[in-house]
Amino acid sequence: MSEHMYDVVIIGAGPAGIQAAIHASRRKIRVLLLGRIENSALYNGHIENYAFVPQTTLGADLLKLGLEQAKRFGTEHSSADVLKIAHEEDIFHLELESGKTVSTHSLILCMGVSKQKLNVPGEKDLLGRGVSYCVDCDANFYRGAVVTVTGNRSAAVDGALTLLDYASKVYLVAETLDVSDELLTRLQSSSVERICSSIKQINGDRMVTSLELANGEALDTEGIFIELGSKGAMQLATQIGVLLDLEAKYIAVNQKQETNIPGIYAAGDIVGPPLQMAKAVGEGCVAGMEAATYARKKKKEK
Amino acid sequence: MSEHMYDVVIIGAGPAGIQAAIHASRRKIRVLLLGRIENSALYNGHIENYAFVPQTTLGADLLKLGLEQAKRFGTEHSSADVLKIAHEEDIFHLELESGKTVSTHSLILCMGVSKQKLNVPGEKDLLGRGVSYCVDCDANFYRGAVVTVTGNRSAAVDGALTLLDYASKVYLVAETLDVSDELLTRLQSSSVERICSSIKQINGDRMVTSLELANGEALDTEGIFIELGSKGAMQLATQIGVLLDLEAKYIAVNQKQETNIPGIYAAGDIVGPPLQMAKAVGEGCVAGMEAATYARKKKKEK
Repeated sequence: MSEHMYDVVIIGAGPAGIQAAIHASRRKIRVLLLGRIENSALYNGHIENYAFVPQTTLGADLLKLGLEQAKRFGTEHSSADVLKIAHEEDIFHLELESGKTVSTHSLILCMGVSKQKLNVPGEKDLLGRGVSYCVDCDANFYRGAVVTVTGNRSAAVDGALTLLDYASKVYLVAETLDVSDELLTRLQSSSVERICSSIKQINGDRMVTSLELANGEALDTEGIFIELGSKGAMQLATQIGVLLDLEAKYIAVNQKQETNIPGIYAAGDIVGPPLQMAKAVGEGCVAGMEAATYARKKKKEK
Repeated sequence: MSEHMYDVVIIGAGPAGIQAAIHASRRKIRVLLLGRIENSALYNGHIENYAFVPQTTLGADLLKLGLEQAKRFGTEHSSADVLKIAHEEDIFHLELESGKTVSTHSLILCMGVSKQKLNVPGEKDLLGRGVSYCVDCDANFYRGAVVTVTGNRSAAVDGALTLLDYASKVYLVAETLDVSDELLTRLQSSSVERICSSIKQINGDRMVTSLELANGEALDTEGIFIELGSKGAMQLATQIGVLLDLEAKYIAVNQKQETNIPGIYAAGDIVGPPLQMAKAVGEGCVAGMEAATYARKKKKEK
């Protein structure tokens, strides 16, 4: 087995992902947990209604404890974001922010839901008319156009690079960038124009025409992609054909946490409400066990 | 609202029941949690794979902590076992071991699965041919017969009393009894014959004919009902028509933890594997929130 071949890879190091890692690792298979605990919605919160944990516990402390538990059972951990997922026969290949690719028999999506909104004037009114939250979904609408991406994590940088294949000009508006050195190098050697500022307002009547920046300048653009946080669930799901629920807000799963694609599971906020830690943990447990069983079966078949 | 009227009643004080109580109580409705934490499969265990709780924690300590959390959110608690559940329009009435009846808009079943086996010779071979684990399911097969019940909790005592309506003679084999004073009084004033011993072997060729007791005596009987623990899930479910899954081993629920009966939810081991604390907690969270929503809606309709 190659160094980069896993049985179960879990994307997202929140409550669902950590619990999935614990249950999968107990099955004596190779498990990789991808993601930073800082990305979990729990990280900056505190716990009120998760049974059996004192109410005063800070989210950050809990996540650190959980990650240590998973590692003790044998989970490997990397904080790298995932940029792309591809499917080859029944193996999944994940391209990481670091440039490395890892492969796996089975995949669990636990990336949660992110509050993707900028909350600036014009954002809501111009949604779908130049404002987008998903490069992978909407890039094709901007062929030959001037577009802007905002955000300071891998989703924004990778989104800007992707848009180079479609748009005539790509701006990236970000005060700071928090991505891997490899991704930063790719950005710097590309034709994406970085603007060190933030967006105060989105202008346009029928369609987006320009942005007002915090540095006082105006930036003409036909599209503004708001890509906060790390590579989002919907984008990755879209890439490999995982089906969403009827409202297209969450990933559709059954009671075994199976998505429509054999070998891909999902758990936690990403599969819908209630957006509660207890529910995420329960679903993570089921997904971890199911994915481990699936991976063991696939290995036997080979 | 009467003193004994609740919005949500939860049967079973294990991980699923406690988490359900926490989430239901946060909705500012009247919630009653029934059951002893000592009955939870977790009580005598320790935790290995529940994320965010140190691995050395004892099950008993966790359950005490969880029960205190639920109470702090307003959950009322009683350790009484439930003997009967009845359904009148859209209100459920629960007859408790204490003789008291409580009523509720909504009900969550979290009684887990109990290891009901005696593990004595003859038990397995004669299953269904005189050996039964469910008075409410099988009493009717023993009209006019001599039958024996074994067990030292409410399930056994209530089972023996129930069998008086069917059998010609009812024995109760139990070294000790751990039931409410009210139930003990009902037993003592009935024609059930108590034998202070335990069963060493079940005899019979085609059908059960007798029992060998620890005190050296033999007891002629045509049926032996093994009713260990408190009133079991299957019995209570049978009483009100809650449907089981295809193998008739667990209660069937959907992703909202709804059973086939509106207002009745189920969570934890009682709805099937994996029999894991994390899964129980997740399902308890969903059941608690759904039951609370259901109860609030019913109250508004009145």
